[in-house]
Order: sequence, then C-alpha cells, then structure tokens
Amino acid sequence: MSNNKASLPVIRRLPRYYRYLSELNANGVKHISSSQLAKILGSTSSQVRQDFNCFGGFGQQGVGYSTELLLEQIEHLLFPENKLHAVLVGVDNMGLPVAQFIRREHTAIELIGLFDTEDEKVGEEHLGITVKPIEDLESFCKENNVDIIVVCTGREKAKAISEHIINSGVKGIWNYSHFNFSVLDSSLIVENVHLRDNLMSLSYRVLHRGE
Amino acid sequence: MSNNKASLPVIRRLPRYYRYLSELNANGVKHISSSQLAKILGSTSSQVRQDFNCFGGFGQQGVGYSTELLLEQIEHLLFPENKLHAVLVGVDNMGLPVAQFIRREHTAIELIGLFDTEDEKVGEEHLGITVKPIEDLESFCKENNVDIIVVCTGREKAKAISEHIINSGVKGIWNYSHFNFSVLDSSLIVENVHLRDNLMSLSYRVLHRGE
Repeated sequence: MSNNKASLPVIRRLPRYYRYLSELNANGVKHISSSQLAKILGSTSSQVRQDFNCFGGFGQQGVGYSTELLLEQIEHLLFPENKLHAVLVGVDNMGLPVAQFIRREHTAIELIGLFDTEDEKVGEEHLGITVKPIEDLESFCKENNVDIIVVCTGREKAKAISEHIINSGVKGIWNYSHFNFSVLDSSLIVENVHLRDNLMSLSYRVLHRGE
Repeated sequence: MSNNKASLPVIRRLPRYYRYLSELNANGVKHISSSQLAKILGSTSSQVRQDFNCFGGFGQQGVGYSTELLLEQIEHLLFPENKLHAVLVGVDNMGLPVAQFIRREHTAIELIGLFDTEDEKVGEEHLGITVKPIEDLESFCKENNVDIIVVCTGREKAKAISEHIINSGVKGIWNYSHFNFSVLDSSLIVENVHLRDNLMSLSYRVLHRGE
C-alpha cells in the first residue's frame, strides 16, 4: 500500500480510526460512509477522506467503505508481520506498569528487555525478563535489533543515560521522562507521555473554569 | 491575576514553562528573555510573550523576565491554596500506579478516594484508602466536594459507569479509558491519556519511516 507521506496529525488519528472501526466491525456494521465516520469521530467527511487518501485511499466514493476491508487495511498499516523489538529502561514507579501494559495490549511491539541504573534493581525478574544493567543497553540493542526504547526514568536519570540511548542505534523512543531526546538527535522518532503536564493542564482548566 | 481566556494550546504549554523555569531557577539563572525561553522550548519569542499575556502579562519587555518572579506567578496559577479533590475509579492494571503517581508528584490534586466495580477489589486498602463500591461514587463525590474523577477502567466499564460519573457533579475527568465522556456532557473538562494510541503512533512512525 502506498503512503503519501502521512503527516503527524494524520498518523495520530490512525489509532482512533482503528478503535472505532474495530467496534463497528464487532457490532456487525458492514458499511460506513465518510460522513458517518466523521460524525462518530467529531471530524468532517472531507478530513476522513483526505486521511484515508494519505494511506493509499481505501474505499470507493458513493458506496461508502466496507468496514471489514477498511479495518483490515488499517491493521496492515499498524501491525507488521514481525513485531518491533522494544526494551524498557527504569523498572521503578511507572516502569513496571508500562511494561505490563505493553505485554497486555495488542500492539506492534514485543518487549524483550528490561534495564535499570540502580544496582539493587539489576537481577530482579519481571514478566519473565531479568533486569540488566544500563551498561549492557547498547550491546543488547545492537545484538537483538531493538527498534524502540521505552524511557521510564525521571528527567535527570534520562539525561545521564542519554548517550547510551543515542548510541544504541534504536529508531524510536517512548518517552515518559521530561528529558528532550530530540535535541540530541533530531532523526529519533519520539512520542512523549508527560503525565504530570497532562494532569496540570486538567487541574488548571478545572480551577480557572468560567473565568 | 487576570486571565484573558487562555486557549487550550496555551494552557497545555503552561506546565512546560513551569518545568523549564523551575530548572532555570534551581540552576541560579536570575533573568531570562522571551527569546532565550523560546529557544529552550523550541518556540518563538513572540509566542512566549503572547502566552504570558494570556495569563496577565508577567515581566517587562526589554529587561527580560525575573525567573523567580515568573515561576512564582506560574505556580500561583497552577497550584491553588486548597488542593482539588480527586477520586480514582478502577484500581486494576494502570489504576494503582496512577494513584501512586498522583500521591508522589507535586500537583494541585489530592487523592481522597478509590472506587472499583469488582466486588473482590472493594475493601482492599491502597495508599491508606479503602476501595469503595462504584454505587457509593455519587454520594461520596457530593459529600466531599470532589472536583476530578480519574477513570482507569477499560472502555466498556467506563461506559457502564458513565452515568454514576456524570451524576457525581465533578468538573473534570482524567480519562485513561477510551470512552468519550464529552459526548454525554460537553461541559465536562476532560484530559485523555490514550497510551495505546500513543504507542501505535510511535510504532507506525518507526515502521514507515523514510517512506
């Protein structure tokens, strides 16, 4: 399937299309128009059509989309035959729940390694994986073709180990820390999860509502 | 401090300003210009100035901002004298780590209740709080002036309990589920954390890089 360079906002909408189409399909909905999809998603039908064109244009105008076919094509884009390899750094606090999340959810990613900077964490076993020292990160990533590092440390630790991460040769970072990896290597693909920022925005909006 | 109706993108940048200014202040930086701040944040100086104007306009042009004063004013906006009250629903999977996160992080929010839909979870004690049944949610929220509900269930459960949540009278939802609460009540302030969507965007970008 061709890919007309989908922009970041389009890519960010793809998982939502996947979710809604999975549900429609499970509920036995066979066909859906771009305007019906737009309504469910709070979007416009022209945006839905434009988005799908970016991914090669599924479906025929006028007759609507086959829910099953559309879902199949989006699954093909999201889930490769061979899963991406990921390792997680920082098993403290959010690290372990995030590791469990990756194991539990149906995604394109297989978690194959755990790392930590603290001596007392190294050697622990979680999810059938033994925690390795951060010094082994680079060689492990290269030997096992690791694609993604999940960074679950605080900002300072992330900064301290950033060179190991850059030198590991991975393509993507799922970043829970507040360290900005893009400044070190702009070719890295980074998705940030900034939970505290998110919670602060919420509390600000609740505090200052109606002003 | 006046508030010229800060838009959502501006509000979302406020926690980032807070983070960077905390760090600058901790590192002994006394003054900073909007262009220096813009450089750190990957923004433009005119955006920084516009953003600060939304919150009442801190600092004087030409002489730059006092880091300490600016931080103080942003803290005043983000952290109220009396913390907001929050309860969390769904202590399974991500629920407990998120509860611990709220307790651990310096935010405007105090966690005062835990709820679950499963009988076997009710009565468990975590963080010094006894898990209550979902049927008690509405009365608890009203009696304790709860401002925010953190929803850590899956989509189906969130849908099933959505009426309890709407009837509780809270103002905000920190939503880890894929249920869309805004369709039920558009006046609710909702911040979504869609971890799976985020991970799927990352894996898509890594898979299709260079196309």
